Amino acid sequence: MADAVIDAVLARIDADIDESVERLFALLRIASISTDPDHARACAEAANWCADTLNGLGFVAGTRPTPGHPMVVGHRTDATAAGPHVLFYGHYDVQPVDPLELWHTDPFAPRLAEDEAGRKVIVARGAADDKGQLLTFVEACRAWIAVHGRLPVPVTILFEGEEESGSPSLVPFLEANAKELSHDVALICDTGMWDRETPAINSSLRGLVGEEIVITAASKDLHSGLFGGAARNPNHVLAKILADLHDENGHVRVPGFYDGVAETPAAIRAQWDSLGMTAETFLGGIGLKYPAGEGGRSVLEQVWARPTAEVNGMIGGYTGPGFKTVIPSRASAKVSFRLVGGQDPETIRAAFREFVAARVPGDCSVAFHAHGGSPGLSVDIDSPHMARSLKALSDEWPKPAVVIGSGGSIPIVGYFKDILGMDSLLIGFGHADDQIHSPNEKYDLASFHKGIRSWARVLAELAE
Amino acid sequence: MADAVIDAVLARIDADIDESVERLFALLRIASISTDPDHARACAEAANWCADTLNGLGFVAGTRPTPGHPMVVGHRTDATAAGPHVLFYGHYDVQPVDPLELWHTDPFAPRLAEDEAGRKVIVARGAADDKGQLLTFVEACRAWIAVHGRLPVPVTILFEGEEESGSPSLVPFLEANAKELSHDVALICDTGMWDRETPAINSSLRGLVGEEIVITAASKDLHSGLFGGAARNPNHVLAKILADLHDENGHVRVPGFYDGVAETPAAIRAQWDSLGMTAETFLGGIGLKYPAGEGGRSVLEQVWARPTAEVNGMIGGYTGPGFKTVIPSRASAKVSFRLVGGQDPETIRAAFREFVAARVPGDCSVAFHAHGGSPGLSVDIDSPHMARSLKALSDEWPKPAVVIGSGGSIPIVGYFKDILGMDSLLIGFGHADDQIHSPNEKYDLASFHKGIRSWARVLAELAE
Repeated sequence: MADAVIDAVLARIDADIDESVERLFALLRIASISTDPDHARACAEAANWCADTLNGLGFVAGTRPTPGHPMVVGHRTDATAAGPHVLFYGHYDVQPVDPLELWHTDPFAPRLAEDEAGRKVIVARGAADDKGQLLTFVEACRAWIAVHGRLPVPVTILFEGEEESGSPSLVPFLEANAKELSHDVALICDTGMWDRETPAINSSLRGLVGEEIVITAASKDLHSGLFGGAARNPNHVLAKILADLHDENGHVRVPGFYDGVAETPAAIRAQWDSLGMTAETFLGGIGLKYPAGEGGRSVLEQVWARPTAEVNGMIGGYTGPGFKTVIPSRASAKVSFRLVGGQDPETIRAAFREFVAARVPGDCSVAFHAHGGSPGLSVDIDSPHMARSLKALSDEWPKPAVVIGSGGSIPIVGYFKDILGMDSLLIGFGHADDQIHSPNEKYDLASFHKGIRSWARVLAELAE
Repeated sequence: MADAVIDAVLARIDADIDESVERLFALLRIASISTDPDHARACAEAANWCADTLNGLGFVAGTRPTPGHPMVVGHRTDATAAGPHVLFYGHYDVQPVDPLELWHTDPFAPRLAEDEAGRKVIVARGAADDKGQLLTFVEACRAWIAVHGRLPVPVTILFEGEEESGSPSLVPFLEANAKELSHDVALICDTGMWDRETPAINSSLRGLVGEEIVITAASKDLHSGLFGGAARNPNHVLAKILADLHDENGHVRVPGFYDGVAETPAAIRAQWDSLGMTAETFLGGIGLKYPAGEGGRSVLEQVWARPTAEVNGMIGGYTGPGFKTVIPSRASAKVSFRLVGGQDPETIRAAFREFVAARVPGDCSVAFHAHGGSPGLSVDIDSPHMARSLKALSDEWPKPAVVIGSGGSIPIVGYFKDILGMDSLLIGFGHADDQIHSPNEKYDLASFHKGIRSWARVLAELAE
């Protein structure tokens, strides 16, 4: 694509930025808190605003009812569109605002402010999560259409209104509309940059298996004077099991745990190393110094690309004030495993249960309770969509775009993969200090402005 | 002592048993609940009843004020008295009665009833703990005095009114009156028999050291997706420490833990073995099968004569309903050690703290909180008082008396040793089914009747 074509779009974005901000403010004024039934009307209003906006841009768009809040779906395929058909995803709903007294101004009265470093920021609930981010894509489309009368690639847009309340309608909706929504690649704008100069695409997400185990020994709580030394203490049984989970080098000892875990490609690992993130920096902010994970791997690799076992909770016996010399009847723990691509959640769950059962004495019993299971996901880092998106982002920002991982889970990526058969590119412009889910949420004006420019470039590159 | 002398006392006891029960009923009608301020008057009334009773028997007796409920002290030394001067201890206060609705009859309206096996029992709060037991000694004295006009040994009696509420006045009272109360041997009637045919003397009591440890890792709770694999999880640190407490054979691994722990004398071990208590019987009642303590030792030795480490409580992270993928900032445990004679509580505490500190990573911290420390106690099983008491009990009951241990702690034994310089003989006639501290407390009529006879014989034997 000729430089002049994209340059004209970028110039239009720059000229139009104040109006873009005004449009974002209009959406931010709608208090679309999805988890609060009192705000159902605001959610419908936000959905209508999105559908109207898309229709105004020449999309064939509308709201779609669900048992909860409506979906917004829009399509625009211009005659000259080339390249992959993209499905863009964002969500128009927002988190609740409490504690309201910690907000400096009304969460639904958006305003431009300056942060401590003198940067311009947009302050409002949803500014970063996710109204500001989803509008970067819409405004990029607006500029393309305004300048050239067309979008370079076929575009379908899906906005959800229940992301902040567990997405109960999403899977049924995707299943019911798979044909309409299945295209070449999904673009998801709900993540962040590596730092303010370095854009990033998330290529891997860890999955999750949660298990609760309850060890029962004696039929009732015992006095440790009368029975201590003879009766089995389930706290001891549980502690041994949990201590056995990791070896001295931080490896998980559940048999077969690492089956299917691939080594991080050397090129990606080199990129991560080049980011200059030390253990001291990563852990210093939370009061720690020494990486606790597998020896010989960087902290970024530990959290982005390696599976883990974590004891999220454990309890047994008397835990109130003072002391009670009890041998409890029961002790329990909640254990979760972060998984990476190739590990099967149910295989891991079964292996863990076997691991535990083998460590429970013959006169004790163990009960298991499953708490969710989703596989890790990794997108094809060698795909042309990935390469083109990285180039587009690198053209826009001071430093080249990097492929990063995410230690957590983003369920939508799995749904798109499983239900729609599509890979996702996770591209977003948020920052760690955006205060999402907290009072005084903000979105850098630079994230919004250069985010719009970024999408304009991505659409151009994908059409090549 | 000629058989005729003791036989006459025993005959008098048998003839007088109905009146003895009536006197016990009179004491049981006084609702001397020491922990309840509303019952302070009843406690004073019970103390007066005891002092009056002793005075009526020719003791020089009276109540002694304390900051709490009064002590009762009485002395009687007959001109012909020979042998050791004994200090008899019991307590006139009782536990609260709630839940009242579970009592079949008024807890302070004592009655004779039949248990399911057809045995006669005395039902009331305090019947076994400790009014019925303390009166066995008083009624034995009554019979001796009635028949022979004298007690065979010099006797001092100490009744406490705060045993069920932590004995706050006991230590200061013993210290202030050490000269008056220090004699040759203490007799304590607040324990039980081995079984309904076999009387028992407690020769060893385990001490106790309590420690609470709090491990702190990160400065705040972390998301296990964002930090899992890199950040130290204090649940893991704690589990490793607790798992390390015991080796595979049930031995405590704290360095120096067994210093000063003597092997149980072969004769005592043989006696315990002869009691026929199997692991199946001991553990079966609480739903367990396999002894958890040191390998190669009987369950009785494990609980009576061996020191232990028990995790009485542990907690860390999210323990509510459902699941939370948190890496907590802190995790804590309450750990207690049962000690046997020769182990020093503060040495054990220091060794444990060192053991824990050595297992805490350099970027985590640990805080310790002490919860009490008392040494184990063992009485001289070769003393003449022990031998004579065993003979007296063996003469009274169908089976020979046995020397047993107690897994728990009885603080008064330590106070008598430390403050008064006296060994104690723990002789009592309670049973495991007496429901002490519970609704429908009872005391076997046989315990009361043959308990009186037992003390009559013990006094006679001690005078030899």
